[in-house]
Amino acid sequence: MVEVAEKHRVVIVGGGFGGLYAAKELGRAPVEVTLIDKRNFHLFQPLLYQVATGTLSPADISSPLRGILSGNKNTKVLMDEVTDIDATQQKVMLQNGEVPYDTLIIATGVSHHYFGNDHWKPTAPGLKTVEDALEMRRRIFMAFEAAEKETDPEKRKAWLTFIVVGGGPTGVELAGAIAELAYKTLKQDFRNIDTGAAKILLLEGLDRILPPYPPELSEKAAQSLGEMGVTICTKTLVTNIENNVVTAKQGDQVEEIPAQTILWAAGVKASVVGKVLEQRAGATLDRVGRVMVEPDLTLPNQPNIFVIGDLSVYTHQDGKPLPGVAPVAIQEGQYVARLVRERLLGNDLPPFRYNDMGSMAIIGQNKAVANMGGAKFSGAPAWFLWTFAHIYYLIEFDNKLIVMLQWGWNYFTRNRGARLITGEGVLEQVNVDADGNYAVASASQAAAKV
Amino acid sequence: MVEVAEKHRVVIVGGGFGGLYAAKELGRAPVEVTLIDKRNFHLFQPLLYQVATGTLSPADISSPLRGILSGNKNTKVLMDEVTDIDATQQKVMLQNGEVPYDTLIIATGVSHHYFGNDHWKPTAPGLKTVEDALEMRRRIFMAFEAAEKETDPEKRKAWLTFIVVGGGPTGVELAGAIAELAYKTLKQDFRNIDTGAAKILLLEGLDRILPPYPPELSEKAAQSLGEMGVTICTKTLVTNIENNVVTAKQGDQVEEIPAQTILWAAGVKASVVGKVLEQRAGATLDRVGRVMVEPDLTLPNQPNIFVIGDLSVYTHQDGKPLPGVAPVAIQEGQYVARLVRERLLGNDLPPFRYNDMGSMAIIGQNKAVANMGGAKFSGAPAWFLWTFAHIYYLIEFDNKLIVMLQWGWNYFTRNRGARLITGEGVLEQVNVDADGNYAVASASQAAAKV
Repeated sequence: MVEVAEKHRVVIVGGGFGGLYAAKELGRAPVEVTLIDKRNFHLFQPLLYQVATGTLSPADISSPLRGILSGNKNTKVLMDEVTDIDATQQKVMLQNGEVPYDTLIIATGVSHHYFGNDHWKPTAPGLKTVEDALEMRRRIFMAFEAAEKETDPEKRKAWLTFIVVGGGPTGVELAGAIAELAYKTLKQDFRNIDTGAAKILLLEGLDRILPPYPPELSEKAAQSLGEMGVTICTKTLVTNIENNVVTAKQGDQVEEIPAQTILWAAGVKASVVGKVLEQRAGATLDRVGRVMVEPDLTLPNQPNIFVIGDLSVYTHQDGKPLPGVAPVAIQEGQYVARLVRERLLGNDLPPFRYNDMGSMAIIGQNKAVANMGGAKFSGAPAWFLWTFAHIYYLIEFDNKLIVMLQWGWNYFTRNRGARLITGEGVLEQVNVDADGNYAVASASQAAAKV
Repeated sequence: MVEVAEKHRVVIVGGGFGGLYAAKELGRAPVEVTLIDKRNFHLFQPLLYQVATGTLSPADISSPLRGILSGNKNTKVLMDEVTDIDATQQKVMLQNGEVPYDTLIIATGVSHHYFGNDHWKPTAPGLKTVEDALEMRRRIFMAFEAAEKETDPEKRKAWLTFIVVGGGPTGVELAGAIAELAYKTLKQDFRNIDTGAAKILLLEGLDRILPPYPPELSEKAAQSLGEMGVTICTKTLVTNIENNVVTAKQGDQVEEIPAQTILWAAGVKASVVGKVLEQRAGATLDRVGRVMVEPDLTLPNQPNIFVIGDLSVYTHQDGKPLPGVAPVAIQEGQYVARLVRERLLGNDLPPFRYNDMGSMAIIGQNKAVANMGGAKFSGAPAWFLWTFAHIYYLIEFDNKLIVMLQWGWNYFTRNRGARLITGEGVLEQVNVDADGNYAVASASQAAAKV
């Protein structure tokens, strides 16, 4: 083997699936790795909806990045945020200082997209971070508490109406989980309300839910959700969200639906680092700001800048762009790491090819759909496949144990221990004024007035 | 048995140990129970320091009140806050409406006390709520992250200095847990700093730590903490906390200690409901606002108002006031519930007597002290006693399983999976100005400027 200089510097931005698997793969390579992330932990996003609906705790689906990589002595973790990139001088500017690179791997992902209606965000939060999930959890469980206290039947109905916007996997998973909560888990817990009277609406703009899946599976998923009590509205566009009323348009028909809990699972937009790459490294962006990449996942004319994971748009061997899912990001991260190692040896690799193991979505207990290389599953077999795959990919062994135990326990008892309402100013937010807006007066202040 | 009217109304304020055990004990009684709490869950406070130091998640030590009491069909849970009490008309005023009572049980506990220096609070947070614990966790782990990035040796030293104010059980537990973090768990995780260089100071005003315990156990605890690397300063008073500098006075000697992480475990003050009882029901309060109660835990001249748990001061059979610990609150709650039932039958009960099973504090792995009815334990036996007792009293079976698994796993691996830095505006808070104050500019704003 050729002696390689020990100091080829690989800088990875983002500790999600793409960045983390690239870093892991480079752990034994003769390079210096710096992994930069705003957070100190890797988040297993596919299970985030279970935090939002009270099954799991944030720590169950998170692993400290330093802990995962502590054995890789060539790897440094920096908790910081990229503010700029200098592609000529080959360095990344951070909030605190700068880091030079020989190879740069960008994997900063995506966040929610409100299609130009960012003012909907406070009323209809999305689900990308731990904080997002805790906010959803707070709203979902607070809605039942508020309904229990509400005496006006119209207002009570609005507290018991849950609207999920977007019929992709996240929307389907959220709607299914809320149905299980309302119609099963919480059934015995209230005295003034019947949680079984809750309405759960899943709104989707296209003609079926789970649009990227084969139509039979969309059909199966819709059937399961229907049996669970979820009302699915397809070909339905949200045209406004204001004062906790959703305006939904289905063909020529426009309906205004009062709902205190509106959850956004509809669109994504690229991380702001995409824009930095456009301005500083000549990247081309798509409509939502994602970065177009070459067959080896580099930027055009920037052979040492890679963009992977949800932030990148890569056209698959069959001509379609790859979806923004964890397996794509993992394989891209591993591919780039291998390519960096090969290049150090003077070799190259063939273009990236995605090995599609299939896709799946969970709907509820014993209910899921899966499409594995043409074989389609639904019901209990799909549910077991989903469960196995998600446990398998949890990065740390102790998380696997805890999540298995939680799921096993929930499976037999339908219990949800993590349904805590937490956060600053918890109580005041249940006090709503006539318009359904949250009051701002602090509960402790009110008590102190005595 | 005499036929009893089905509608004697018992209102319990507070879902901590006292209130919850009273409610549980009344589940089969011929009364209507309303349990009022600001939060929707019962919190197992003795383990809160393990959330603050990254071993457990909030949900592991919390149980939804509605879930615990869902089987008690005579019991209603209200998520609300008491603003006033009318002892003449026998009703409790809430933020949303009012609730009439025949018997009122107040168990609203205590919060931190800064001895008239409430402006220390933002710099030196205390540990009473889930939010408090997450804030401590954020500060502890953020301090290591900031030290890793800091190049100035003095500032780095301040990031690696942890001061715990107060040598009671909570202070001892916090100091021990931080020592295990710095000197063991995180040892391999950083590249620029040696976490072993961290300084952990435990400040106590009296002449020994764990003052309510027998002196031999205080000695043993001090010895164990010393071996773990904690510096204990007894007879030390904190006279000021400003700009992340603690002014500590030991006799005539005054020292200023720069420290970015200052944790408050020193004093308690009564819940504001104590003051309401003073004004509305003629209660007598002690120096920190706790309520003096009769031998049957009622207020003087108010035979149907009980005050239990940390909020009450009850003079024990041996002439000493009972300490503010969970077993006292539990036994008081159970006693009051029994007394309510007996009164409905026309009977009375002898005065409350506390059955003291002993007290204990944990210091670290295999290190604890326990005093059980005169028998004193330390080291591994005390640690096993502590572990068993805490698992035993966790209210729900699934929490017991999860916590056992977490502890078992941590015991063998020293891993801490829950060391997440979460909360709004996470990243900006690591950016401190020259005075060590947190900067307010948002990280995302900075990135968006590009």
